[in-house]
Amino acid sequence: MKKYSEMTAQELEQLKKELSAKYKEYQAKDLKLNMARGKPCVEQLNISMGMMDVLSSDDDLTCDDGTDCRNYGVLDGVHEAKVLLADMMEVGVDNVIVYGNSSLNVMYDTIARSMTHGVMGSTPWCKLDKVKFLCPVPGYDRHFKITEYFGIEMINVPMTKDGPDMDMVEKLVSEDDAIKGIWCVPKYSNPQGYSYSDEVVRRMARLEPKANDFRIYWDNAYTVHHLYEDDQDELIEILDECKRAGNPDMVYKFASTSKISFPGSGVSVLASSLNNLQDIKKQLTVQTIGHDKVNQLRHVRYFKNIDGIKAHMKLHADILRPKFEAVLEILERELGGLDIGTWTKPKGGYFISFDSLDGCAKDIVARCKKAGVEMTGAGATYPYGKDPHDSNIRIAPSYPPKDDLIVAAELFALCVKLSSIDKLLSK
Amino acid sequence: MKKYSEMTAQELEQLKKELSAKYKEYQAKDLKLNMARGKPCVEQLNISMGMMDVLSSDDDLTCDDGTDCRNYGVLDGVHEAKVLLADMMEVGVDNVIVYGNSSLNVMYDTIARSMTHGVMGSTPWCKLDKVKFLCPVPGYDRHFKITEYFGIEMINVPMTKDGPDMDMVEKLVSEDDAIKGIWCVPKYSNPQGYSYSDEVVRRMARLEPKANDFRIYWDNAYTVHHLYEDDQDELIEILDECKRAGNPDMVYKFASTSKISFPGSGVSVLASSLNNLQDIKKQLTVQTIGHDKVNQLRHVRYFKNIDGIKAHMKLHADILRPKFEAVLEILERELGGLDIGTWTKPKGGYFISFDSLDGCAKDIVARCKKAGVEMTGAGATYPYGKDPHDSNIRIAPSYPPKDDLIVAAELFALCVKLSSIDKLLSK
Repeated sequence: MKKYSEMTAQELEQLKKELSAKYKEYQAKDLKLNMARGKPCVEQLNISMGMMDVLSSDDDLTCDDGTDCRNYGVLDGVHEAKVLLADMMEVGVDNVIVYGNSSLNVMYDTIARSMTHGVMGSTPWCKLDKVKFLCPVPGYDRHFKITEYFGIEMINVPMTKDGPDMDMVEKLVSEDDAIKGIWCVPKYSNPQGYSYSDEVVRRMARLEPKANDFRIYWDNAYTVHHLYEDDQDELIEILDECKRAGNPDMVYKFASTSKISFPGSGVSVLASSLNNLQDIKKQLTVQTIGHDKVNQLRHVRYFKNIDGIKAHMKLHADILRPKFEAVLEILERELGGLDIGTWTKPKGGYFISFDSLDGCAKDIVARCKKAGVEMTGAGATYPYGKDPHDSNIRIAPSYPPKDDLIVAAELFALCVKLSSIDKLLSK
Repeated sequence: MKKYSEMTAQELEQLKKELSAKYKEYQAKDLKLNMARGKPCVEQLNISMGMMDVLSSDDDLTCDDGTDCRNYGVLDGVHEAKVLLADMMEVGVDNVIVYGNSSLNVMYDTIARSMTHGVMGSTPWCKLDKVKFLCPVPGYDRHFKITEYFGIEMINVPMTKDGPDMDMVEKLVSEDDAIKGIWCVPKYSNPQGYSYSDEVVRRMARLEPKANDFRIYWDNAYTVHHLYEDDQDELIEILDECKRAGNPDMVYKFASTSKISFPGSGVSVLASSLNNLQDIKKQLTVQTIGHDKVNQLRHVRYFKNIDGIKAHMKLHADILRPKFEAVLEILERELGGLDIGTWTKPKGGYFISFDSLDGCAKDIVARCKKAGVEMTGAGATYPYGKDPHDSNIRIAPSYPPKDDLIVAAELFALCVKLSSIDKLLSK
């Protein structure tokens, strides 16, 4: 396989002609495929249908402690749901609050509360001239949208295979008290699927932020979302580590069952120190009487315990693994050795991250779209939608049926080739 | 029946001795009763248990438009849920957003958003020196808690049988651009059970606020919560009326199914103009991917349409009506003609409002508590918990079983008598 960079202009032109003909064939197929969002596929939804049967009119909707889940009350979650989700979060049951259906909403609320009320008594951020967040990039577009919505300035921090560039993080947070947080997806990161190394977690817990209301926003979205039973990433638990490091209040940890049971109809959870939870509950008690306890009970009765969740996640993995492997196989077969792109090979999570030649990502995504394949918008993985190299593309293999996915991945590889040729020819 | 105010000190002392003995008898009973919160009772919860059966693993969880309710997506509610709740709200289907389980949370979010982002382009309230809200009193404590939490100054406006004192409302909003809202429970108000007259609704819709980001917060919590089939309050629809009056964007209308299906596991809804909804969706799309669609579908499959909701509300009324009537009968029998208290006789909603002699409410509630009957805290029906007359007490007859309720109401009447005697003797 000859590297594109080593081809002559003539060779590239010839190749372009052949590939363009292929591209036209794809266009003629009238495809309508989607690799844009990390959405579970129908087969994944089907494996949770038993959840619809665990609560019927014959069942007693009462908790172990006698709480009638059908009525008002219980601000921070019914006890058995706290136990289940604390186990999933690898923290103590007193360290969690169970919320409604969306951990994104919990993160939003956390920032919104800090804007209007500060953090454990600090000045409300809306009263400050400037608030900044560190954003490991590439990262999750919806995180960036929240901080952008609140006018928070976002600073890119490069991701490495081991997590964010900690030299940069340590320096920035220790120097600038306008930096109030860092967005982290520590396990099977979005979009690269990287997991933070022990060293990164330890250094994260030992940050010495200039702002005492600096918090680590630890979005543990893929905590049990492994692809392989025998090759799983495990992280040092961050709450414990922050405690050990003398920074017990420095982290908020988020998760939900959205990609475990049903997206949009799951339960979400926040874990933090008792001090932080006390601060949060001052808001929570004004905000709501309580979240959906019937749905909390439904999850507990269905999964029973953390082992039930783990067993369930194996069923998800059995559906997802062949899809990831199919895409990776196509990328390797079609693009391996051509020197026009690199990609990650995650062991969990929902994404593969692809990096094209500089300046090609937008063009690749546009070409895919014109042939009927929707990708995540190029740039979405960066704050303000601005990828400085225009090279990162997030691939989401979960949703399409495998046959469609193969077609979509092959088209994607073709578009990468065409864009790269144009790029090389224009030099 | 002799009025207490016409009794001699000696007569009052003698009466006090008799009543105190009775009170001690109650204390000996070791009661543990609760008339504090507007919580449905077990029998009310039981009538909604069929809701647990409408979605099983044999059912198709797909909407009419093909949306799979089990997956991500649909920001503002599935179409059939919008139809159902728009009908309940008496507005068009395009005028609603279906939210999660708590309309209180929607109200909180509405204020929180206005604090950080203003209203349809106005200055964010957190950037203003002063923000004020009008609070018809007595009113709903949780409304007042929200505005208090955000440091919004609350101005008491007296309630009348027809609604808030509109002379005062009109004058205040037209003069002061710091006034950004008014909390309203227009139908079967909390705690009095009053419904706004046609004139009040018309005048409300024709307010000429100095602040262009002034909004009416129309909490239609008891819209279908009648006690009598043949004697129901009906209001002029406020969105329509605001439109007619040339103030189409001046109102947010809120409701939920909390006291229709299961409190805490229902769905909530906001209705407003398209301009307001557009403004709100800018936030909503950052805040969440969507609310719980499976629960939306569950409600639609169970109630089918507004007639289903109305039929269901008759079952609630059949349980609640005897409880309201029992309390009213006891109040009339025990306190009628004594000139030591007045109370409302609602045709719907969840509360009876009681006004004692000035300066007695706290004492009455404390006496009830010492004999094992929990009432809503005196003062709770006023902003900052400060009832200027210390006279208003909210009675919530829904939760206790009827036999308990009778005991609790009789004890309450006894405590009213004892407090009133002490008050009169101290003059």
